[in-house]
Amino acid sequence: MSSTPIKKVGVIGAGVIGASWTALFLAKGLKVIVTDPAPGAEAKLRDYLQEYCAAVPNATVAPAACLENYKFVKDIDPYLESLDLIQENGPERVDFKRRLFAHLDAKTPSHVLIASSSSGLPSSQFITECTNNPGRILIGHPFNPPHLVPLVEVVPHPGTSKEYVTAAYEFYQSLDKDPVVVKQETPGFIANRLQAAICAEAYSLVSRGIVSAEDLDKTVTSGLGLRWALTGPIMTNTLGGGGDFSHFMDHLGPALQSWLDDMDQHRFDMGSQEKVEALKRTVNDWVSQVDLKVVAGDRDALLANLVRDKLDHARKST
Amino acid sequence: MSSTPIKKVGVIGAGVIGASWTALFLAKGLKVIVTDPAPGAEAKLRDYLQEYCAAVPNATVAPAACLENYKFVKDIDPYLESLDLIQENGPERVDFKRRLFAHLDAKTPSHVLIASSSSGLPSSQFITECTNNPGRILIGHPFNPPHLVPLVEVVPHPGTSKEYVTAAYEFYQSLDKDPVVVKQETPGFIANRLQAAICAEAYSLVSRGIVSAEDLDKTVTSGLGLRWALTGPIMTNTLGGGGDFSHFMDHLGPALQSWLDDMDQHRFDMGSQEKVEALKRTVNDWVSQVDLKVVAGDRDALLANLVRDKLDHARKST
Repeated sequence: MSSTPIKKVGVIGAGVIGASWTALFLAKGLKVIVTDPAPGAEAKLRDYLQEYCAAVPNATVAPAACLENYKFVKDIDPYLESLDLIQENGPERVDFKRRLFAHLDAKTPSHVLIASSSSGLPSSQFITECTNNPGRILIGHPFNPPHLVPLVEVVPHPGTSKEYVTAAYEFYQSLDKDPVVVKQETPGFIANRLQAAICAEAYSLVSRGIVSAEDLDKTVTSGLGLRWALTGPIMTNTLGGGGDFSHFMDHLGPALQSWLDDMDQHRFDMGSQEKVEALKRTVNDWVSQVDLKVVAGDRDALLANLVRDKLDHARKST
Repeated sequence: MSSTPIKKVGVIGAGVIGASWTALFLAKGLKVIVTDPAPGAEAKLRDYLQEYCAAVPNATVAPAACLENYKFVKDIDPYLESLDLIQENGPERVDFKRRLFAHLDAKTPSHVLIASSSSGLPSSQFITECTNNPGRILIGHPFNPPHLVPLVEVVPHPGTSKEYVTAAYEFYQSLDKDPVVVKQETPGFIANRLQAAICAEAYSLVSRGIVSAEDLDKTVTSGLGLRWALTGPIMTNTLGGGGDFSHFMDHLGPALQSWLDDMDQHRFDMGSQEKVEALKRTVNDWVSQVDLKVVAGDRDALLANLVRDKLDHARKST
């Protein structure tokens, strides 16, 4: 790992995730070389960037200037020597990534950090043919849309060097992202597991007719989610225990256990075609009445405000 | 149920929840009669109201005027005839609530809605001695702090009349709250079950050393929670499936199931004193370094901004 500051980033794959990363990198003053073999990828990227660059919270580069600072290339190989970091966003297929990483590892100077946006594949599965320096490869898993949501899960494989974990952490942090370190490769990493936990109970409650799909979501958007945007589950417990997590566990642990036991008895069976189809119908009855473009647009607008408000608040406090 | 608009509310119990309800009612233009037998309750309530009334998003009454519109009384019985609604916030003990509700039901005109803030006891457990009109009794469960968080879980017991469910829903909605209807009494209602689901996996991941307590919380506050403040689990799935929940289930269902299976294998054992104590130590190591007053203050300030921003945005869209 060299201590050169990161100025030029390679982005492999320019779908929604790759384009969103590119917008973030550009809005924070980096130069970007982007590649994607899909037909029409270059024009699509331009469209994405025009929308995304303007939305990045606390951007340091104006949207018009962002569009001057990247280059879309058909073949990234001639540029690999010049990059300070690579963010990969290719298809989630082990065989594909194995070949791609063997190639990138061979052709990129061995001190350069290579991060994969993979949400599902731990990197130990696709570094198997890397012979140069697999110790500089890790997962940097963003959340949709990455130019707005600060979270990045940094997941080393067992052979990733600590210095690269630190480098990835510091790099993402320098872009106003909020990285977390997942210390062991775990299926679903952290966020997708927590999300699966809540979804499983959501599916159960809606399927059982205890709450409508719309009200289930409202329970989160008007209650739990508002708090979780600001204090996580453990801090929320702590504040709920009058500032004492132990007090919370002693007093509310038994109730929590009793709810978990009841949830276990009424688990949604993801393996039942019939139950899954019935759930889809129930959800679609609601969703079909909603204008999803408006929902997504509102979410992105409010999300950008919220992230900006949190950043401003944190800066005032320090 | 009379169709008289609700102008005067009785609040039974003036701890944090009762005081927070009182602030909300006052800031939205209602008159409130409050009672609480605890020594010093009257002075404490005054302090709470001075803080809370000013923080209510989209208040229609100025903080100073709010303080003119309530009366703290030692005995609420002489006022029960004059009330349009009661919000009860007494201790979570079945025997206590059974006596209290028998009394309130006997003494309050039979058309008046009586809502309990109970977070844990379904009302069927404490209406057993009500002989006047138990059909007007239900749960209206708020979320801390109720003057800021819009969610209210409306939970009828099997004998609650539908008109009272509607009346409670419309009343809370008229205060800019977001009520949801829990159609059957279920342990933990909706929100506490969803919260238990996420906490169980959070405890497991932290206990296993896969992520620090601080990073676990950050995964939520900088990622999942930001989205959940704006789109619930089901809508988030739908948007993740390109606007199609069925597509999401077909393509991500198997991954979700594989994470749930792995989570099952690594469940946190809430019954193990040893594991619970170790978790407490891990959490306390982090929390003891944090100024909880600052955390709670920041949360409340940002929460009020967020709720206001969502309300403004919703009004502009309609």
